[in-house]
Amino acid sequence: MQKFDIHILGCGAALPTPRRLSSSQVVNIREKLFMLDCAEGTQMALRRSHISFSHLQAIFLTHLHGDHTFGLIGMLSTFGLLGRTQDLHIYGPHDLQRIFQPQIDYFCADSPYKIILHEINTNTPQTIYEDRSVIISTLPLAHRVPCCGYLFREKPTPRHIRRDMIDFYHIPISQINNIKAGIDWTLPDGTLIPNERLTTPADPVRSYAYCTDTTYQPQLADLIRGITCLYHEATFAQEHALLAKQTFHSTAAQAAQIARDAQAGRLILGHFSSRYQTEDILLQEAQQIFPNTFLVEDGLKISL
Amino acid sequence: MQKFDIHILGCGAALPTPRRLSSSQVVNIREKLFMLDCAEGTQMALRRSHISFSHLQAIFLTHLHGDHTFGLIGMLSTFGLLGRTQDLHIYGPHDLQRIFQPQIDYFCADSPYKIILHEINTNTPQTIYEDRSVIISTLPLAHRVPCCGYLFREKPTPRHIRRDMIDFYHIPISQINNIKAGIDWTLPDGTLIPNERLTTPADPVRSYAYCTDTTYQPQLADLIRGITCLYHEATFAQEHALLAKQTFHSTAAQAAQIARDAQAGRLILGHFSSRYQTEDILLQEAQQIFPNTFLVEDGLKISL
Repeated sequence: MQKFDIHILGCGAALPTPRRLSSSQVVNIREKLFMLDCAEGTQMALRRSHISFSHLQAIFLTHLHGDHTFGLIGMLSTFGLLGRTQDLHIYGPHDLQRIFQPQIDYFCADSPYKIILHEINTNTPQTIYEDRSVIISTLPLAHRVPCCGYLFREKPTPRHIRRDMIDFYHIPISQINNIKAGIDWTLPDGTLIPNERLTTPADPVRSYAYCTDTTYQPQLADLIRGITCLYHEATFAQEHALLAKQTFHSTAAQAAQIARDAQAGRLILGHFSSRYQTEDILLQEAQQIFPNTFLVEDGLKISL
Repeated sequence: MQKFDIHILGCGAALPTPRRLSSSQVVNIREKLFMLDCAEGTQMALRRSHISFSHLQAIFLTHLHGDHTFGLIGMLSTFGLLGRTQDLHIYGPHDLQRIFQPQIDYFCADSPYKIILHEINTNTPQTIYEDRSVIISTLPLAHRVPCCGYLFREKPTPRHIRRDMIDFYHIPISQINNIKAGIDWTLPDGTLIPNERLTTPADPVRSYAYCTDTTYQPQLADLIRGITCLYHEATFAQEHALLAKQTFHSTAAQAAQIARDAQAGRLILGHFSSRYQTEDILLQEAQQIFPNTFLVEDGLKISL
């Protein structure tokens, strides 16, 4: 299977601590890297994780609160000092340019690479990136400011050729792509060889959704149905459900409801309020609704 | 002796690493805290050092390069989340308001305390803070952008009363302040008791100068003559003297020349280029000129 890894660089809520940064992740799809949010300290966490700075294709910001963006300008500046020349695209909601372009102009004036800011309409899902292996699109979320999640979906890959059967039936090279695509083969005597005998199934299509920060959005489940892995914010435990609602955050139980309704493969929780000494209560409350739930930690790598 | 401590939060040059942040320090004078520069990660380093956020009086920025300022907005935001209500004064060169006011307005809009920015003319030394125990003034430096160092000088304290002698000569309470100020005492029979018999010497006046980033500025020695402790940038070793000049930085040897010419008590070196695996060469080159030289490290506390 090709690489599809999630690196958790930071999973705390608003207040970073020496133990836990605020939000930042890197998704590695076949050695192309995509960053999700960029809290203060992200560049140091990148180094700690031995992730190659130079393979970063794009940065996706969910919203313009400081605990998701304060590491951006420092990291961009460092990329320049390290001699990056490849363009870097940054996506984020309304105000991205107004807030960050002046900082980039001032602090990265001598940088040897181009930084291109893209403002997203967060009200409707849209595709913002596509290459031969992945499609990345936005997921509308509801927070105190414009906010969206991001959905990574692999493109389907062809079935795997069974070399032995191709040789056995003397199928010419010119037909291999058709066979990979699932087409049957007819022998000179008219016998039909079903594709299943010539190939093994394609790798399953994997997907990842990053949903933070948001109040409980039941309709989100429809947009991520069948997701392989869902990261959903779980700022609060059930006892603070009212506070979650007031601050446009979610409880762990609400995150689990989304995962259950979306028939997700796995739920990973983050964006923990620093008020909890341990997040066990969040895990318990979520697992009662969706058993295949895990808590993330800074430095964790998850392979899909 | 009253407290006069320097906490080194970060002492690296432009590129922060997990091992070493860029520039940031806290000076603790009698439990009043003053921050010098604020690199990315400073708020996490503050927590690591168990320094009380709430006792911070003011922040002094030497210049507006990212490795001295990228931690500012995150820290200010955190102070707000932690409920700070006391005004916070921030001093820095020209452009401080243009660059940081929009960020403060956007990210700290709900903060329950006031942030007041003060732009400094870095071309001439000036007093920017004074209370009953300390005077803080600026030191012109020469870098690629407007830049100044900061000089902390304790105010002289009175001599210490010898309680036993005061009792012995029956000196009334009303005269104590005069005695502390160094005035002699005359007995009813006209005998003069010299002040030295009634008091012990005042604590020595301590001082600290923070000089970074700068090219070699020989005239700096005059402004800090007799300094108790000098922090001077030592970005480069002698082999990179030309690079130091070109980038408006100093070598360790140049820092030592300033310390020697200023008759400093102690020299501490920081702002090390990340090109050096070890800074031993910097220490050696400085000690040849000024033996009482030390290298700082993140997390170090120096008591004057």
